[in-house]
Amino acid sequence: MFENKENRTELSDLGEFGLISQIAASTQVKNKSTVRGIGDDGAVLDAGDKKVVISTDMLVEGVHFDLVYCPLKHLGYKAVAVNLSDIYAMNASPSQITVSVALSSKFSLEAVEELYEGIHLACEKYEVDLVGGDTTSSLSGLIISITAIGFADESDIVYRNGARETDLVCVSGDLGSAYLGLQLLNREKQVFLDNPAAQPDLAGYDYLLERQLRPEPRRDIYEALKKAGIRPTAMIDVSDGLASELLHICDNSQAGCQVYEEKIPVDIKAAELAEEFNMNPITCALNGGEDYELLFTVPIADFEKIKMVKDVHLIGHITHKNAGCVMIEKGGQSIELKAQGLDGLR
Amino acid sequence: MFENKENRTELSDLGEFGLISQIAASTQVKNKSTVRGIGDDGAVLDAGDKKVVISTDMLVEGVHFDLVYCPLKHLGYKAVAVNLSDIYAMNASPSQITVSVALSSKFSLEAVEELYEGIHLACEKYEVDLVGGDTTSSLSGLIISITAIGFADESDIVYRNGARETDLVCVSGDLGSAYLGLQLLNREKQVFLDNPAAQPDLAGYDYLLERQLRPEPRRDIYEALKKAGIRPTAMIDVSDGLASELLHICDNSQAGCQVYEEKIPVDIKAAELAEEFNMNPITCALNGGEDYELLFTVPIADFEKIKMVKDVHLIGHITHKNAGCVMIEKGGQSIELKAQGLDGLR
Repeated sequence: MFENKENRTELSDLGEFGLISQIAASTQVKNKSTVRGIGDDGAVLDAGDKKVVISTDMLVEGVHFDLVYCPLKHLGYKAVAVNLSDIYAMNASPSQITVSVALSSKFSLEAVEELYEGIHLACEKYEVDLVGGDTTSSLSGLIISITAIGFADESDIVYRNGARETDLVCVSGDLGSAYLGLQLLNREKQVFLDNPAAQPDLAGYDYLLERQLRPEPRRDIYEALKKAGIRPTAMIDVSDGLASELLHICDNSQAGCQVYEEKIPVDIKAAELAEEFNMNPITCALNGGEDYELLFTVPIADFEKIKMVKDVHLIGHITHKNAGCVMIEKGGQSIELKAQGLDGLR
Repeated sequence: MFENKENRTELSDLGEFGLISQIAASTQVKNKSTVRGIGDDGAVLDAGDKKVVISTDMLVEGVHFDLVYCPLKHLGYKAVAVNLSDIYAMNASPSQITVSVALSSKFSLEAVEELYEGIHLACEKYEVDLVGGDTTSSLSGLIISITAIGFADESDIVYRNGARETDLVCVSGDLGSAYLGLQLLNREKQVFLDNPAAQPDLAGYDYLLERQLRPEPRRDIYEALKKAGIRPTAMIDVSDGLASELLHICDNSQAGCQVYEEKIPVDIKAAELAEEFNMNPITCALNGGEDYELLFTVPIADFEKIKMVKDVHLIGHITHKNAGCVMIEKGGQSIELKAQGLDGLR
């Protein structure tokens, strides 16, 4: 089946989102218990009393992580964290995960134990049970596939498609740090490869490294919103970069948005490092990804309430579809947002 | 972390079951909604009205399949089928799956479409919805991770641990065929590698090839048991071979078993091919695996009912734990059953 070169379409030309669109277009939903299928952070299934929210992610060695600088324990933790983040992004609370791993012979039992130490640590912190999975061999490297499950009342679940004109656009934490942490690790790896005697120079960058190596899903924001009596109209987690996620919300909600460059939260250390790399920190925030912050919209009527929620930043508002998705630069100029992951198809 | 060679335990020494035991031992369950965690064909979660049954499997190119002889469409179908089989083995009916794939650059969009054609075909046949997943790159080959979800009433769910002394041991279909189909494909691949002009000689072996390349989960047996008013006391699907699955049921049920060699169902073509390969067909049935038949136990009081269910074979009965797990050979000799997958850790 790999013979017919004439009809060959490269996946790299299509990109991940193009591929997902193709798969979604060929997929039909038939079961009454399927409330929501492909196209959000998680699928929603009907279990009667409760809805089941389910999400899955696969991490591949050499694509998503590099064991040269990513300790296995951190990797296990991160693999769980990014999946839990998807469930919180549906405004639900995760309660179970399944973990499948494929391992090449370079991994010993002790290495696997380290990986699971990180998995267990994340499970403990977020009160999630590891309930199943699969373990198998691989011919090269480590692959981890995690499925996270949560239960929620239907009325609590938030999709990507509920943003309405005049809604406020909010994001938690700061953006771009995880991406800059990765750039730092890659630079020091290169230094090490060029001169194995060199010691990595990572001092002062703990925060950025932690954002890359050990991200935390924003359960605190999910809980704070609940406590404040705020139900977002749309929500998504920032895994591919702010621009891409804003476009997802606007596409799904048939809306536009206007965000302000000066409002986009960037950590001071991230800004400094970006400068060192000759990068624009806002570009890192827009396209870097792996922040696992929550991006959401709330009705303007909730303005007073949302102002009081710690570590949430108002960065703009939802507009009419025809106005497009734009960022107002510090100089006042309006530029169109585009989804362009900085690392291509991951 | 790969430096410390002194404390290195090879995964191959431990085996897959050893590794799962280690992981299970280090895993605690805390959520009330977790009814059953690691250790059965699927996990069971409490959603209120209904229970959620969930199972996951990972297939790795070069380990579980060889694209030289496994068409992508069949592979997609099989990947779904083996996951649905786990849900039926819990006496539940699957209704959703998520599919994650990692693909190297050798795969074109057309190849991915073929894979999903098979996935969709299985979904259609078994009335299951594809509700989510992940697509990502891999550095080498294709990895597929599927999670299947079903809903069931708690009273219907069957675990591995309910077999009681005097229960009848039953298995559907026939055993060993999938393994022999694989041997055949491997032989013809070798012939082809030695002489690329040679045509594969697979005539007359359609059934064995189909058993290997396109197994069907036994929804029909699940439905027939329901219709006959039979609730198995324990059930498992045959993925690793009859011996291994019998030991799982007996271990979990704290019981022993006695099965009869002459009762183990083997297809005539499988028996012929086994002879050609100088193998004992019963060894293939005991240790070959990938049959995806249902192995289950029923109370002896259901004897008259189970006799009437098509394509189910009574192969023995459950005994006291102290009697061990044994097979009575045709000559009357009793041999202890051992779990020894013919292909090592998969």
